[in-house]
Amino acid sequence: MARQASLSGYLELLPQERLAELHLLDTLRGIFESHGYGSLETRAVETVETLLQKGEIDKEIYTVSRIHDDGAKDARLALRFDNTVPFARYVTENAGHLAFPYRRYQIQKVWRGERPQAGRFREFTQADIDIVGDGALPPRADVEIAVVMASALEALQIGDFTMRINSRKLSEGFYRAIGIEQTAEVLRAVDKLEKIGPARVEQEIMETAGATSEQAQQALALAQIRTPDVSFVEQVRALLPDQTGHELLEEGLAEVTEVIHEMSIRVPGRAVADLSIARGLDYYTGTVFETVLHDHPQLGSICSGGRYESLATKGKRTFPGVGLSIGVTRLLSALFDSGELVASRSVPTAVYVTLRSDDDWGAAQNVADTLRSRGINAEVALSAEKFGKQIKYADKRGIPFVWFTDDDGRHEVKDIRSGDQVQADPASWTPADEDLSPQIIRKTADL
Amino acid sequence: MARQASLSGYLELLPQERLAELHLLDTLRGIFESHGYGSLETRAVETVETLLQKGEIDKEIYTVSRIHDDGAKDARLALRFDNTVPFARYVTENAGHLAFPYRRYQIQKVWRGERPQAGRFREFTQADIDIVGDGALPPRADVEIAVVMASALEALQIGDFTMRINSRKLSEGFYRAIGIEQTAEVLRAVDKLEKIGPARVEQEIMETAGATSEQAQQALALAQIRTPDVSFVEQVRALLPDQTGHELLEEGLAEVTEVIHEMSIRVPGRAVADLSIARGLDYYTGTVFETVLHDHPQLGSICSGGRYESLATKGKRTFPGVGLSIGVTRLLSALFDSGELVASRSVPTAVYVTLRSDDDWGAAQNVADTLRSRGINAEVALSAEKFGKQIKYADKRGIPFVWFTDDDGRHEVKDIRSGDQVQADPASWTPADEDLSPQIIRKTADL
Repeated sequence: MARQASLSGYLELLPQERLAELHLLDTLRGIFESHGYGSLETRAVETVETLLQKGEIDKEIYTVSRIHDDGAKDARLALRFDNTVPFARYVTENAGHLAFPYRRYQIQKVWRGERPQAGRFREFTQADIDIVGDGALPPRADVEIAVVMASALEALQIGDFTMRINSRKLSEGFYRAIGIEQTAEVLRAVDKLEKIGPARVEQEIMETAGATSEQAQQALALAQIRTPDVSFVEQVRALLPDQTGHELLEEGLAEVTEVIHEMSIRVPGRAVADLSIARGLDYYTGTVFETVLHDHPQLGSICSGGRYESLATKGKRTFPGVGLSIGVTRLLSALFDSGELVASRSVPTAVYVTLRSDDDWGAAQNVADTLRSRGINAEVALSAEKFGKQIKYADKRGIPFVWFTDDDGRHEVKDIRSGDQVQADPASWTPADEDLSPQIIRKTADL
Repeated sequence: MARQASLSGYLELLPQERLAELHLLDTLRGIFESHGYGSLETRAVETVETLLQKGEIDKEIYTVSRIHDDGAKDARLALRFDNTVPFARYVTENAGHLAFPYRRYQIQKVWRGERPQAGRFREFTQADIDIVGDGALPPRADVEIAVVMASALEALQIGDFTMRINSRKLSEGFYRAIGIEQTAEVLRAVDKLEKIGPARVEQEIMETAGATSEQAQQALALAQIRTPDVSFVEQVRALLPDQTGHELLEEGLAEVTEVIHEMSIRVPGRAVADLSIARGLDYYTGTVFETVLHDHPQLGSICSGGRYESLATKGKRTFPGVGLSIGVTRLLSALFDSGELVASRSVPTAVYVTLRSDDDWGAAQNVADTLRSRGINAEVALSAEKFGKQIKYADKRGIPFVWFTDDDGRHEVKDIRSGDQVQADPASWTPADEDLSPQIIRKTADL
């Protein structure tokens, strides 16, 4: 990771790092599939129109065009900047072929033409899960998504994390209850709380949402509520002069309560009701989520998302959904930089089969095939170099075992970490389970 | 697959198709890793200069630029059109961090702005394996690559296939031996043999390579040699007036002989020496491979590649390599179209846990968690609809089992294919192995 990328903003992993990434992605996939989420991949390109429909990051879009324009009237294309907008487009287009509610995970690269800086990439992997319904989707979907993602983050063993949860319904309902109508402007201001501080947020609320100083202070007071349990409800009620008739607020309170309550049972210690959470993207309409990694607060949110009621629509038909997305590359990059994540080898190989002479290649492949058929990854030397050189080959890659066969067909296998060498039969010799695949070593505080 | 893609040339799979694709890709990955090949991913974008250095498909390149050019002097970027050129660039850039010979697999999307037509895509997945050496790479690497890829294609169970093998050294050496110097022109003409027929190839050889009619006919005679064993050597020698001093030819004969010989032992019946194989890309220098699927000859080559001596260079340092690449999307698309490849479900779920009432969700998740901890993918209903509707939900997705828990906490599981319903304990009930994951059903002629 100390290497300089040849294109600024584009991270390319070394073989050992890639093995660690693959382990993380396999872990995510395993958890997602165990909960019934199926894989989806959408095309890398979208029409510019699709991408500009939602969201506010138009400046960062990469457009795509053929190097030799032959005058064909192709649609104007651009690379996707997240997985949610393409997913919504896919759902709308294929609604007739999908069974709803539809659960899917999508682990793909996305591209943003951001100014590159530490931890900001122009190409990065996002791992998303979403549930979408046809016409309606029960609030329980929000609970499920949060529990599945928290379970996935726990399985990654990347250290303690907190999911911070709010609802746009709660915030907007509250703003309306205290007499502010321009709720989007307040959300936008509150979203900057950590960046610019309460005084400037108050100022901005007054200026952009036409709020009084008292209203702005109440909005700020709401944003300061943060509880690890459902006591946030009482705190919200304490701020409100009049408790009745605020339907949107009540919906938001009930939905966040259900998420916090169920998470406290299924993934204890991972959820906090944090009423400052707003999320920048315009399409969220209900619960919103951010996730902080305790050992890496500088990363900001490593996993975000929320409920969107009308991102996917087809005429009068709507497909409400809820989803969460992990910024994998950013997370990986931090774990590599801190030395927390290391693979024990640079290759998948468990056994390196040496050659006594170049003519032994076929026999060596027979040994390797026998091992492979038993689930043991084996590589055969390309040429019969000196044994010392062949052992060094394995050592350099972190391959734990080297296999020797003598002229009489007797086999021995050497553990090059301990130096122990024993007689072995390729049909029965078995390494320790943890030596079968590269070990992913983590050095987080809580392990 | 009968659906119309919303962007011409861009295939997006339905959930069930994606499960089949994933199964194929997992199978490839398993075989590649079992032989010691590690995963690599390179960035989607290359500089236009890198892409134009090699190959001849410049017309098809997609360029990439930021929608709002802010005047930054960014390099001119384009999407990769294969995995080989980016791999060579990666090897050159990271040579100091890699251990050679370096074996890697790379399963990634590539993009070509081709005119879309049946089976031709603008975005498609290629699955590559390559071995590269530092300065030198023994011919045995070519043998290994061919054996690994043939094993991988066998593991896919997509029906009978033949790998057609030649060497540029053999062809060029032969052309020189009969007095033709402009060998590239002859290769280019011979490459069109199947398309335009021998008469026009002969004509083209005479016109572009300045050959006599006799020379052109000899070149054509070479291209007609096709043997499933090493007898091609004799046939080549029979064409040659003078047997001595043709070093390049001898190298080529020896290298193809070794590949054919070892393949006949390790993957019998899969290799044919076919001296008409030329491969269009300029960077090949030795063995070249194409692969035909017997049931789908219209696909052309589903897996191609070869030896490249100087694709990757760094000053005077060269990294010779050999690789093979499967055109996954084209292959998949044909298997879907013919109905040969079908997944038994559209979701990874094995058990659908029903709800008696909405309050049972936590208890149902407990059942599901117990199943998940035992490797059984389980999904919980989002709301307590009528049981008939919940069973229909599972049936529609091909989920084989539905779980019921009564008010007294007694569990029953129903196989919705047979209708059998039995008492079950989530801590011990186990479905048949083949019901754990979606079954991938193939209906090829030879299964």
